[in-house]
Amino acid sequence: MKINYPGNIKKQEFSKVNNYGNRGMTLEDDLNDTNNYYLEKDIAVIYKKPTPIQVVSTNFEKITKAYFKQPSTTDYNGIYKGHYIDFEAKETTAKTSFPLSNIHKHQIIHLKRIIKHGGIGFLIVRFTKLNKTYFLFAKDFINYIEATNKKSVPIIFFEKSGYEITLKLNPRLDYLEIIDKYGGIL
Amino acid sequence: MKINYPGNIKKQEFSKVNNYGNRGMTLEDDLNDTNNYYLEKDIAVIYKKPTPIQVVSTNFEKITKAYFKQPSTTDYNGIYKGHYIDFEAKETTAKTSFPLSNIHKHQIIHLKRIIKHGGIGFLIVRFTKLNKTYFLFAKDFINYIEATNKKSVPIIFFEKSGYEITLKLNPRLDYLEIIDKYGGIL
Repeated sequence: MKINYPGNIKKQEFSKVNNYGNRGMTLEDDLNDTNNYYLEKDIAVIYKKPTPIQVVSTNFEKITKAYFKQPSTTDYNGIYKGHYIDFEAKETTAKTSFPLSNIHKHQIIHLKRIIKHGGIGFLIVRFTKLNKTYFLFAKDFINYIEATNKKSVPIIFFEKSGYEITLKLNPRLDYLEIIDKYGGIL
Repeated sequence: MKINYPGNIKKQEFSKVNNYGNRGMTLEDDLNDTNNYYLEKDIAVIYKKPTPIQVVSTNFEKITKAYFKQPSTTDYNGIYKGHYIDFEAKETTAKTSFPLSNIHKHQIIHLKRIIKHGGIGFLIVRFTKLNKTYFLFAKDFINYIEATNKKSVPIIFFEKSGYEITLKLNPRLDYLEIIDKYGGIL
């Protein structure tokens, strides 16, 4: 059994409060935590797809030679309140704009298809140096990039057309809240 | 330009008719073909998830040691007519029943969650020795296995409660047709 010393509790609490917004977790960690929370609370069933890997050779159960493949779709999908959910999550160290080189053409085509077939498609982009994470509906993202020749999306566009997701304790990155408010679902 | 000799055409036709139901393709091949067809015809957006792999060591771009991991969900998901689609596909060489050892417990839990959240969950099971492929809604499958202690599902259950999918030329395995007819969607 664990004995709780008052000093110890305080230290833990303090450490939590100070760190949960900035404990060096990657966007992927935050999303995995969040998706686990949604799953455990029976709110949604959303998973990150495994990274596609081309296996070249194996020795019994062990893979001895393989390569990472380019994903043909987005990283995350699942179901929420009967709606198909599909999104891509990206971190950038850039400070003023999100470089479009982060998103592949086939991922944009995929998101277009999702929207067309009645799903909810979006991006979650984190500007790591600014400690800011934005939710942007794929429709707004695609409309923007198709109307411009620029190779990046300025952060002001995320501020205006997207929604900042502030880190919480649990769930860490409550992106479904944005869908509830602005996703046009009941 | 290709010159069509009457004899040649006949030969091709004959060969097609005889082979498309039995040309040694795996269930996975058939489903990939079918999903590609759905994608190209803009009917649905359904993909097989990559196999999860635990990467242990890499040498630059090359993976030098890795292991296959147990998948925690089903193999296929996507969107059709605004509905979230989720299914597992299995081949068995058994002739009279489908061994439940083919489906993991967490996959059943996953399918239950999908149904609860309003998605369309199902299994596609091929009895390779019998050359028969069945579609079975996850609800019927789960109801059956939860009411029995048996370690397999007899083929008669697939015949009665499921739907046989006969192979066609294109799409090879038209499982969405079953959903249109019996999935309770508009």
